[in-house]
Amino acid sequence: MARIKTIGVMTSGGDAPGMNAAIRAVTRAGICKGFNIKGIYRGYDGLINDEIRDFTTENVSGIIMLGGTILKTARSKEFQTPEGRQKAYDNMMKHGIDALVVIGGNGSLTGAKIFAEEFDVCCIGLPGTVDNDLYGTDSTIGYNTTLNTIMECVDRIRDTAQSHERIFFVEVMGRDAGFLAQNSAIACGAEAAIIPEDSTDVDQLARFMERGIRKSKKSCIVIVSESPKCGALYYAERVRKEFPDYDVRVSILGHLQRGGRPTAHDRILASRTGVGAIDAIMQGQRNVMIGVRNNEIVYVPFSDAIRSDKPFDKKLITVLDELSI
Amino acid sequence: MARIKTIGVMTSGGDAPGMNAAIRAVTRAGICKGFNIKGIYRGYDGLINDEIRDFTTENVSGIIMLGGTILKTARSKEFQTPEGRQKAYDNMMKHGIDALVVIGGNGSLTGAKIFAEEFDVCCIGLPGTVDNDLYGTDSTIGYNTTLNTIMECVDRIRDTAQSHERIFFVEVMGRDAGFLAQNSAIACGAEAAIIPEDSTDVDQLARFMERGIRKSKKSCIVIVSESPKCGALYYAERVRKEFPDYDVRVSILGHLQRGGRPTAHDRILASRTGVGAIDAIMQGQRNVMIGVRNNEIVYVPFSDAIRSDKPFDKKLITVLDELSI
Amino acid sequence: MARIKTIGVMTSGGDAPGMNAAIRAVTRAGICKGFNIKGIYRGYDGLINDEIRDFTTENVSGIIMLGGTILKTARSKEFQTPEGRQKAYDNMMKHGIDALVVIGGNGSLTGAKIFAEEFDVCCIGLPGTVDNDLYGTDSTIGYNTTLNTIMECVDRIRDTAQSHERIFFVEVMGRDAGFLAQNSAIACGAEAAIIPEDSTDVDQLARFMERGIRKSKKSCIVIVSESPKCGALYYAERVRKEFPDYDVRVSILGHLQRGGRPTAHDRILASRTGVGAIDAIMQGQRNVMIGVRNNEIVYVPFSDAIRSDKPFDKKLITVLDELSI
Amino acid sequence: MARIKTIGVMTSGGDAPGMNAAIRAVTRAGICKGFNIKGIYRGYDGLINDEIRDFTTENVSGIIMLGGTILKTARSKEFQTPEGRQKAYDNMMKHGIDALVVIGGNGSLTGAKIFAEEFDVCCIGLPGTVDNDLYGTDSTIGYNTTLNTIMECVDRIRDTAQSHERIFFVEVMGRDAGFLAQNSAIACGAEAAIIPEDSTDVDQLARFMERGIRKSKKSCIVIVSESPKCGALYYAERVRKEFPDYDVRVSILGHLQRGGRPTAHDRILASRTGVGAIDAIMQGQRNVMIGVRNNEIVYVPFSDAIRSDKPFDKKLITVLDELSI
Repeated sequence: MARIKTIGVMTSGGDAPGMNAAIRAVTRAGICKGFNIKGIYRGYDGLINDEIRDFTTENVSGIIMLGGTILKTARSKEFQTPEGRQKAYDNMMKHGIDALVVIGGNGSLTGAKIFAEEFDVCCIGLPGTVDNDLYGTDSTIGYNTTLNTIMECVDRIRDTAQSHERIFFVEVMGRDAGFLAQNSAIACGAEAAIIPEDSTDVDQLARFMERGIRKSKKSCIVIVSESPKCGALYYAERVRKEFPDYDVRVSILGHLQRGGRPTAHDRILASRTGVGAIDAIMQGQRNVMIGVRNNEIVYVPFSDAIRSDKPFDKKLITVLDELSI
Repeated sequence: MARIKTIGVMTSGGDAPGMNAAIRAVTRAGICKGFNIKGIYRGYDGLINDEIRDFTTENVSGIIMLGGTILKTARSKEFQTPEGRQKAYDNMMKHGIDALVVIGGNGSLTGAKIFAEEFDVCCIGLPGTVDNDLYGTDSTIGYNTTLNTIMECVDRIRDTAQSHERIFFVEVMGRDAGFLAQNSAIACGAEAAIIPEDSTDVDQLARFMERGIRKSKKSCIVIVSESPKCGALYYAERVRKEFPDYDVRVSILGHLQRGGRPTAHDRILASRTGVGAIDAIMQGQRNVMIGVRNNEIVYVPFSDAIRSDKPFDKKLITVLDELSI
Repeated sequence: MARIKTIGVMTSGGDAPGMNAAIRAVTRAGICKGFNIKGIYRGYDGLINDEIRDFTTENVSGIIMLGGTILKTARSKEFQTPEGRQKAYDNMMKHGIDALVVIGGNGSLTGAKIFAEEFDVCCIGLPGTVDNDLYGTDSTIGYNTTLNTIMECVDRIRDTAQSHERIFFVEVMGRDAGFLAQNSAIACGAEAAIIPEDSTDVDQLARFMERGIRKSKKSCIVIVSESPKCGALYYAERVRKEFPDYDVRVSILGHLQRGGRPTAHDRILASRTGVGAIDAIMQGQRNVMIGVRNNEIVYVPFSDAIRSDKPFDKKLITVLDELSI
Repeated sequence: MARIKTIGVMTSGGDAPGMNAAIRAVTRAGICKGFNIKGIYRGYDGLINDEIRDFTTENVSGIIMLGGTILKTARSKEFQTPEGRQKAYDNMMKHGIDALVVIGGNGSLTGAKIFAEEFDVCCIGLPGTVDNDLYGTDSTIGYNTTLNTIMECVDRIRDTAQSHERIFFVEVMGRDAGFLAQNSAIACGAEAAIIPEDSTDVDQLARFMERGIRKSKKSCIVIVSESPKCGALYYAERVRKEFPDYDVRVSILGHLQRGGRPTAHDRILASRTGVGAIDAIMQGQRNVMIGVRNNEIVYVPFSDAIRSDKPFDKKLITVLDELSI
């Protein structure tokens, strides 16, 4: 394998707070170590469509605290085709890019895995997603910020819930993972959380009913993980039917959960993993995601990172149960 | 009219940030001037159901920065009946309450007006609503906080809008008034605002199309004032039909707009009008809302305050138009 | 006077949140009306040193929510000399700048006044200062944001003050004006404010002692307006001497008061006055500051704007006194 | 050992955000498991002076999001004497308190250790300090909030630093530990951090000079860990002497770093360790601090927790160095 001289960096998939801090870290650490850095715009689409620019430290100046991504992002359909990936590879070669740093979530790293295998190129992933559903890293870039954003929103909703003595079902992001819902419920002092990891035999709503709602006229907040079928609207409707006396409301937080200035945690995580990506390249690593586990930088093979069974700490369910008595 | 010795204070209608600061101000200024203060819980319902407690300075300690209302609030149906109001009056007499300070919006002050006329009691209103739709005061308690909350939410949404190059329709509160929508649009640097005050001949959407959307691939944010028929979903659907290439999204901010810690403006407004309510009572005023106009305390007769034609500064439409080129 | 074609915009003096929103508004409204806009860097120094660039709408894109000023700012000593001003004028001519929009405080507008008179050029001022000490406008760009920043800091300090039952003297900005100190004291529920406007016969500290401190072991917060001689340290020392049993602490908020994302109020004020500056130029106005009084755009002659006797509402002192019982 | 029936909970030492969430968790989890809970006011002083009240779930309702501590806190001198501790023990017995949960930092847990050994009582510690200097837990309650508070303050200061092109030395808390300084420097994109863990041969200031300051006219931010001798003022003075052309400023953040609403991280950490304290008592654990290491609850013997050599990740120094090029 020839020595790597030029590194391309991109963001891909849903935007997450801290992606800019990660772009900055990759760029600065890369330049510090003597690499050329090229910014690729609009994710894999930009690689296919040749939207690539030389990056200096100036390009990433003053962005550590900005939400979103200055490189733009997209979910590329064309990259899912062999023709698209061939175009992407051709452009990579044209620009002399020897290695690719992809900042994104599950889908983006799956794309990186296929691309790396197909063309035998060096791809490094950074875990950039608010959902925290990447295996092998304790936390993903964006998760902590979104968790705090949700918490602040629910703090506001609680003011109204308590003043009007209402029951609120608040729907939050998470794709198929309950990290955001369960942890924000604990952080907000919510009465219950409805999450995909805990929908076994027991009807979660029934448990909530028995426990939470019997406090009669008091207000109550239930955090619901987004779900195509059983979101906040579904549960609100069921409670309204069974308990017609209650004033039941729904709040779907939606898109505002993604944006905003990153927290210290996400800026530091992005900075550390960004520096870690350059170190990994220098050590000859390839096709791994840079994670932080037990406060140490780890290299997670793509096939592990995208596993769908990231362990969920069931004890958090007990914590919420005991504290919402 | 006998000298007033005991004043009851309540919050009514939708909760608004700063209501607690107003309760505190009425209580402390009242006690400072030698009155007895009684807290009435759950608005007019609490007056009807006798949910009344003696208040000392301790009751309002440490609440100036809290959203919601420690007195709870409600929209009372029973108070709309003569029987309900009679019960309310009887409880007032039972507790020796000589004057009532009602913190609330249009409906609450309309209730106060009817009650005051019917039983010849002293009612003082404080403008407590996030919608800013009370006539005779430059601003209402809660409006400034909600304006900033909306702005912060849209700042977040913009991160995603720009990163993904999407068109967002963001629906905000305001009842029949466009204050929140128009001013938040200016504050956020939004491309357009759709407000009830400007739905004359011109189709607002068409104007937005011509002006905002022709910037092709760029992101775009349109603030839409809530409306039973023509909310954000309606406009998003129309744009999707006419411009199928655009990635159009909707965010309905909903309940989180009401809560949260009040801004300095709302805490000061609540403090000044709360002190003003006690001054007004001492001066023999009755059945007026305490407002602030041109930075001076004013007494606005209830019949004026609840007028539906609070002037909207059309120049703000020009400001937004010129700045979103 | 020839028709104005090209407008230069600069920020000058201490930075204030909202200055970027003002630069954006002047640039966009100017371009919308057909003017050329030139950005002048580092205030008057940049005019002297020829740091001038053409501005398009792109230059001011995405800056409405940023603190500080993208044009940088400085306090120019050279501009205080006739030679410096001559150089500034020569550069203005060289770049074809017909009118100057200066965003700044007292000193900056005084400079604009002298310059305008000396060379008979059109200067328009925008009130950009956190101190709110410009006459003729209800509020200055930056004041509302700084007021809220102070409030949030004192909210934090109160947590410690109450937990440890301490007396805190918190020093805030304001130059010779007590607007920030008095209003933040009301907004924070502080026990007292020490301001320049109220240091007549009465010893303010004595009043505070009698009133605030006799509540024995409770915590207490006093906001002190910055002052070369009698700042927070001075008062803390005096209290420590007279009341050795109290745990007295000082917090000088300092530079962090200036920065941060502007509030909705400041962004809207900056947007309105920025548009107003272009309107004023088109109407042939010159050598005025654009203010907002009673919610209307007003033109304030420089000589009025820089008057040192901006009226201070003494009733605010009563409000604080009554609410801190 | 007799079965434990009644648990006393207190906060001690400097207040930290999340202490209220910890009090709530101990109280609710304790009641959930059938214990009686008693709140002890003002730390060990309250135990000595018999300031003890029965706690129900109501006492801790609505406090999860509040900074400071509703139980007040203090640093007790009397508890450092055998007589003081005897009084404390006598009051414990008088109230039938079988176990003590102490939420506090190094000094408070040292006190708990001595007390536990002296009287053979069950003491459980929760790590409550903003400094993160307790061994055996990845993070302490309050640390994450303070880190974010510092970051937000420095974000503001940077606005001014960049606008005026100044060099700022910002002094932050940390006692003898550089966690806050180093991590906030990374999170803020500061140019350098001066911390106690890195004052070996190299003169840190010299390194900063060579690296940071040679960027001539640019602004620069250096985070300095508090220190009796070599704080921000000391370094600012030295730089002023050597580089008289630079505009060097100092900001000492001070007391505001302690307060404020806790972040999600701190609320969750407090909730988990609070529940963990009750679990530990039920398992017969005593004289341990409840920590979270590698996302698992751990029991750390007091003698370990108060060790002064909590490992500091030197790689963070490299991260900052590479990113501030």
